[in-house]
Amino acid sequence: MTRPANRSLGLSDRRSDGAQAQSRGGATAADRWLLSTMMAALPRCGFAAMLWDGTTLGEQTGLRVVFRDRAALWQVARNPLVQFGDLYSAGRIEVEGDLVALLERLYRAITAGRRGRRSAWWWLWQDQRPRAGSLTGARENIHHHYNLGNDFYRLWLDDEAMQYTCAYYPTPGMTLAAAQRAKMDHVCRKVRLAPGETFVDVGCGWGGLMFHAWDRFGAIGTGINATTEQVAELRAEIARRGLDGTLQVIEADFREMPGQYDKLLSIGTLEHAGPDQLAEVVQAHANAMKPGALGVIHFIGHVGARDTEFFIRNYIFPGGWIPSLAQALGAMERCGLEVLDVENLRRHYALTLDCWGERFDRNWERIHALDPVRFDERFRRIWRTYLWSCAEVFRGKDVQLNLFQVTVSKGNVGNRYPMSRSFLYGPA
Amino acid sequence: MTRPANRSLGLSDRRSDGAQAQSRGGATAADRWLLSTMMAALPRCGFAAMLWDGTTLGEQTGLRVVFRDRAALWQVARNPLVQFGDLYSAGRIEVEGDLVALLERLYRAITAGRRGRRSAWWWLWQDQRPRAGSLTGARENIHHHYNLGNDFYRLWLDDEAMQYTCAYYPTPGMTLAAAQRAKMDHVCRKVRLAPGETFVDVGCGWGGLMFHAWDRFGAIGTGINATTEQVAELRAEIARRGLDGTLQVIEADFREMPGQYDKLLSIGTLEHAGPDQLAEVVQAHANAMKPGALGVIHFIGHVGARDTEFFIRNYIFPGGWIPSLAQALGAMERCGLEVLDVENLRRHYALTLDCWGERFDRNWERIHALDPVRFDERFRRIWRTYLWSCAEVFRGKDVQLNLFQVTVSKGNVGNRYPMSRSFLYGPA
Repeated sequence: MTRPANRSLGLSDRRSDGAQAQSRGGATAADRWLLSTMMAALPRCGFAAMLWDGTTLGEQTGLRVVFRDRAALWQVARNPLVQFGDLYSAGRIEVEGDLVALLERLYRAITAGRRGRRSAWWWLWQDQRPRAGSLTGARENIHHHYNLGNDFYRLWLDDEAMQYTCAYYPTPGMTLAAAQRAKMDHVCRKVRLAPGETFVDVGCGWGGLMFHAWDRFGAIGTGINATTEQVAELRAEIARRGLDGTLQVIEADFREMPGQYDKLLSIGTLEHAGPDQLAEVVQAHANAMKPGALGVIHFIGHVGARDTEFFIRNYIFPGGWIPSLAQALGAMERCGLEVLDVENLRRHYALTLDCWGERFDRNWERIHALDPVRFDERFRRIWRTYLWSCAEVFRGKDVQLNLFQVTVSKGNVGNRYPMSRSFLYGPA
Repeated sequence: MTRPANRSLGLSDRRSDGAQAQSRGGATAADRWLLSTMMAALPRCGFAAMLWDGTTLGEQTGLRVVFRDRAALWQVARNPLVQFGDLYSAGRIEVEGDLVALLERLYRAITAGRRGRRSAWWWLWQDQRPRAGSLTGARENIHHHYNLGNDFYRLWLDDEAMQYTCAYYPTPGMTLAAAQRAKMDHVCRKVRLAPGETFVDVGCGWGGLMFHAWDRFGAIGTGINATTEQVAELRAEIARRGLDGTLQVIEADFREMPGQYDKLLSIGTLEHAGPDQLAEVVQAHANAMKPGALGVIHFIGHVGARDTEFFIRNYIFPGGWIPSLAQALGAMERCGLEVLDVENLRRHYALTLDCWGERFDRNWERIHALDPVRFDERFRRIWRTYLWSCAEVFRGKDVQLNLFQVTVSKGNVGNRYPMSRSFLYGPA
């Protein structure tokens, strides 16, 4: 769980041919003016920035951002949060020193600068508008993200349950696999899952939670999954374990869930709806619950209503959009769901992402070997930027993202829910 | 904690002179038509309704609403939720049988009818618009409610700590006083109150929580209170206990709190702001917290954004307005408060109100004796309707109101807050 001491990519001698072509000439006075203005908007940033001709500004701390060509500089100036990841992934920006430390400092400087608005840049550096997603769009978005092959995910998620969602670390020093088990236990307890009850696992992924809910709680599960490859693999695994009458998977968008269930588990699905679909997706959750059913809806929540970072939306989670807690709870209330409990697991997500990033780095050669064309250096840069910068976003001093687990009931469950939450913390 | 078996007021032989004058004549065809239309809009209501001339409709269940005059009938038809309490308090409507059972059935029938919209009445029976409140207005509102004299409240609140807010019943069968102690412990634990820390108690009432926080946690407190009589009594009590250097009270509106504190406790104050003041009141809470401070904001939350019941707003809590959870959390997020935890104590409020109602009824003669002119039969009817109907609202099948405790931090408190909420449930 400790982060590797040096996460430098050691790639600063590489650059793309296009970048080389563009950067033949030295920096102009306009380039230097742009760099100095930009650095002035990020006071005490804790790193240096260098142009392609060696012009350097900022602090000499062993951390340096290198712009390989003029276009990269001007694109970053347009929107640093959007462009930095893109250009780094393309090799047109290099990072000398520890990437994670740089991301930490960059986020800190940007959020401090945004708050201070000491520079006119902050009027330019606005978030982009959210965009909509149709049902077909949602399915394509999910395919984009998950159809990278199960073997890929197995090499950096926990290998036991393949949970691609925030883990739960109630005690320090837990392994990723133990923290994912603790998470699954925690949500099953929150809905009081009991033997013989039916549950729906909305966005069931590779089925880890379904197997857990059957093995530990004796509950009968239906998983909803829109990714063909995952569905096929999960069905085979259910058959292999002899659980065909107990667990089933339905290949469907989570707005098309059939049936009603005693309990609902929705771990990391709300983020897959676009801003226009939030009400519809939450309504589909309510529809899948029997009257009096309990559910846990676990999702990433923005602090305040705003847009999802462009880099993540464009490269990692197309169509994804992160609601604020108030937006999500408003949608739940409007569907007649009573909010029983909300827990913020923000720091747990930072630890989870540390573990993922560390496993991704450790297993990179094996990932690359799975498909050297697909899992190339650019891919590696995108994913590293994503994993490590998300960890910083969840840990950062200026809180941008939270992870909420919301326990809801469909209507008034009266005495069927305990008066005290102590039942979540006693022996299993 | 069990409710008294018969809570009939036994007052059906009384009526006001005005009502008598108005009801000399028999019911007309129009009166009978109105009654039958109205009862048809409340199917399976479980009670009968009788006009001043004996005309009776509805179910013979031993529960009967009696309209003493024509104007009362037509006023109820205009808005039953608004007018019923008014007219009952004025003696122009009588209830034969158990008042609490009738309120239960009336709320159930009204919410069922509203959902079904089987009658055109439901277009008429809308909630009223919220209304605004200035700072002066807020102070007057609070005076209206709390300046009934401490002796009055002592006769039906818990006599130990005089908590006029929802208690916490983690184990069944607790007394009201024990449940109020448990509530005070719970909120102090939620903010990790520690010896020597400073806290502000926003709307400190009679100071029960301040004494608890000092006695059990050794914390140094400032209470904010806008009610002169409470402030005087609390200052005297602080002096009597020799705590002058430790606890202090500031007579101020909670939008004018001076200073910043390590911890903030705000138990039942958000409801005193009007809808236009929510953002301002929440901002004042944030301003009273040091950077990194923890706070608990405990408030009644409507399910969905809507207006406060007219009867409560007009008679009991003038200017009071109840936000929805989503509205309150949105306001907190906009002030840079991170939401760490939300707990819904709805059913705890029903139990609390049961205890208050039961004590109010039991001690009525003593209340009446305090000031027979002020605490007259009309006053008794208003308060009984308020206490018992609120209990039903918090218990009712169709959830209208919740009680939320929201734990917030001002900015990122990092590792200073535990990763697991188990610390709330271990030994003290």
